[in-house]
Amino acid sequence: MNRMKSLSSWLKKKDIQGAFIHTKENVFYLSGYFTEPHERVMGLFVFQEADPFFILPKMEVEQAKNAGWSGDIIGYEDHENPFDFIKTAIEKRGVRATRLAIEKESIPLQRAEQLQAVTGAETFVRAEEELNQLRLIKDETEIATLKKAAQLADEGVKIGVNALKEGVTETEVLAVIEYELKKQGIQGMSFSTMVLFGEKSGEPHGNPGQAALKKGDFVLFDLGVIVDGYCSDITRTFIYQEASEKQKDIYETVLKAEMAALEMSQPGVRIGDLDLKARGLIAEAGYGEYFAHRLGHGLGVSVHEFPSMSQANDDLLKEGMVYTIEPGIYVPGVGGVRIEDDVLITADGPVTLTNYPKELTIIK
Amino acid sequence: MNRMKSLSSWLKKKDIQGAFIHTKENVFYLSGYFTEPHERVMGLFVFQEADPFFILPKMEVEQAKNAGWSGDIIGYEDHENPFDFIKTAIEKRGVRATRLAIEKESIPLQRAEQLQAVTGAETFVRAEEELNQLRLIKDETEIATLKKAAQLADEGVKIGVNALKEGVTETEVLAVIEYELKKQGIQGMSFSTMVLFGEKSGEPHGNPGQAALKKGDFVLFDLGVIVDGYCSDITRTFIYQEASEKQKDIYETVLKAEMAALEMSQPGVRIGDLDLKARGLIAEAGYGEYFAHRLGHGLGVSVHEFPSMSQANDDLLKEGMVYTIEPGIYVPGVGGVRIEDDVLITADGPVTLTNYPKELTIIK
Repeated sequence: MNRMKSLSSWLKKKDIQGAFIHTKENVFYLSGYFTEPHERVMGLFVFQEADPFFILPKMEVEQAKNAGWSGDIIGYEDHENPFDFIKTAIEKRGVRATRLAIEKESIPLQRAEQLQAVTGAETFVRAEEELNQLRLIKDETEIATLKKAAQLADEGVKIGVNALKEGVTETEVLAVIEYELKKQGIQGMSFSTMVLFGEKSGEPHGNPGQAALKKGDFVLFDLGVIVDGYCSDITRTFIYQEASEKQKDIYETVLKAEMAALEMSQPGVRIGDLDLKARGLIAEAGYGEYFAHRLGHGLGVSVHEFPSMSQANDDLLKEGMVYTIEPGIYVPGVGGVRIEDDVLITADGPVTLTNYPKELTIIK
Repeated sequence: MNRMKSLSSWLKKKDIQGAFIHTKENVFYLSGYFTEPHERVMGLFVFQEADPFFILPKMEVEQAKNAGWSGDIIGYEDHENPFDFIKTAIEKRGVRATRLAIEKESIPLQRAEQLQAVTGAETFVRAEEELNQLRLIKDETEIATLKKAAQLADEGVKIGVNALKEGVTETEVLAVIEYELKKQGIQGMSFSTMVLFGEKSGEPHGNPGQAALKKGDFVLFDLGVIVDGYCSDITRTFIYQEASEKQKDIYETVLKAEMAALEMSQPGVRIGDLDLKARGLIAEAGYGEYFAHRLGHGLGVSVHEFPSMSQANDDLLKEGMVYTIEPGIYVPGVGGVRIEDDVLITADGPVTLTNYPKELTIIK
């Protein structure tokens, strides 16, 4: 409940009367209850002093209690209007929320308008301002969980490598990876697993299909798992049976860039400089135009979270941050290489949570 | 491109100068390109007369072309501001979008504000008004794809049933189901697969865990797949080895409710009456308080889409609609039963797309 208290303190400091938190990630972060309500109204109301309350579909009330939430819960049925209940609950608490914090980056416009109607809010404040900061620095329990998730991501790559054989398809390998990981009881994959062969590895957001593995193919795995609500994210690229000089050159360039950004990961360093360092090395090697995305992203309850590891980010690295480093080179008609690690910043420098070997590997 | 034309006609009819479509479902529906951009800006601008354009992360431009999009594409890199490009592209087209249609149910407030700043929009109109109507009636190709997806959902239940044995865990069975389906090359599951044993089947939104199967357990499967962008969704409940009278009574009541709502599914019938019919039968049997969700939901590019099959829905069923019927009874401390089919309305009445047998089955 320290997280709830931090949020209440922030509300007080900023003269905001209440907050409505609706994303499953932040609701989980604050309450310990994880749910995917789809289009149904779900969220947590937090105030400066008054008791917080949950608004939930009635069928989830028991689950929220079982997850450890001991505060008020308002359960509504599908034919009822949750906003009527919200109005009453806020009035009962004697709160007039003229300034209301909401997650502006994700709350749908229509829901914001509905909230405005029942709360009388005149100004919406970005709740992300505080929640991103709270979530930015991971505590010991979170770090232990992130490590577990990263180890299982390593394991996923290993399973994938073992499943490679001439003629196997991308989706077959993907299915083996997810099967073996799910058997171990993970909560889920943290995003759609990517297994890409050959030229398709050159699509940074490619979708696995029925392509069959053949000699000389790049093999790119990008995958992650969710363990106790926390995500991992790893990318490794291999070459199948036989590598061209061009392929080797691309690989070694990406690896050099990844290692350089990793080494720079020290408390106090400007985040954008990591991206610039990796980007500079890739450009020097002549592949500048083929690295069209940022260096990486924060990692935690969400697989993409604050901070953005982009060249424009002027914030400084701090102890307890966890993020990905994932430079890539994608050459149309040739294919792509990306190498990605999950990194924890400690007082003594960077610790990689993912540890699958990175040296160029030609799979025989 | 008929869908794009329909949207342009609607804009003209409603005196709306432009539309920005950003959800992956509607972008796919209109353009044929499926992408999951996470937090990145992605979407389709559509106008009354002027040429439409795509705004996409630069690394996805090739993929969109490969998916068949032949119109303009603006690709931006992570360090660039997509809204600058949007502003220029709209100005170049000579459009003044004072009324702009956006998906108000899902567009984040912050993005709406950013759009307002670069388009000068004074009023946002619900794009869902037209898109929901367009998507409501499925054409032949869509129906064929939905059938394929439903058949694979049937297959998923069959795989799950075959994987049951004393002591097996929920997540083990789940892993087998997804593995076998993914090997067949499905695009993905349409939502997190549910395999729930015993009392846990009484949580309509329960999460599979390490519970081991034992004699007398309910076994509830709720799963679906995505095939060529279209979703299926099936629920079947079984009893393991030995059934109590109470369990049988619950099962037969749900089945009766499901069959009754299915039979009523004829063009011209009020949607809410299906829910009321099923709900009435469940209440009559004494379980009224244990059916806390609506009867079902529309199905298509999204696993939950328009229309909502709730008692409050006054719309009428029409030929070409596809939706789920899924009544359930969830008794705390005992467990739950839900039976769900995907249903297509034809001129001759309902056709179930899911066809796994529904009679009470005690798995030996």
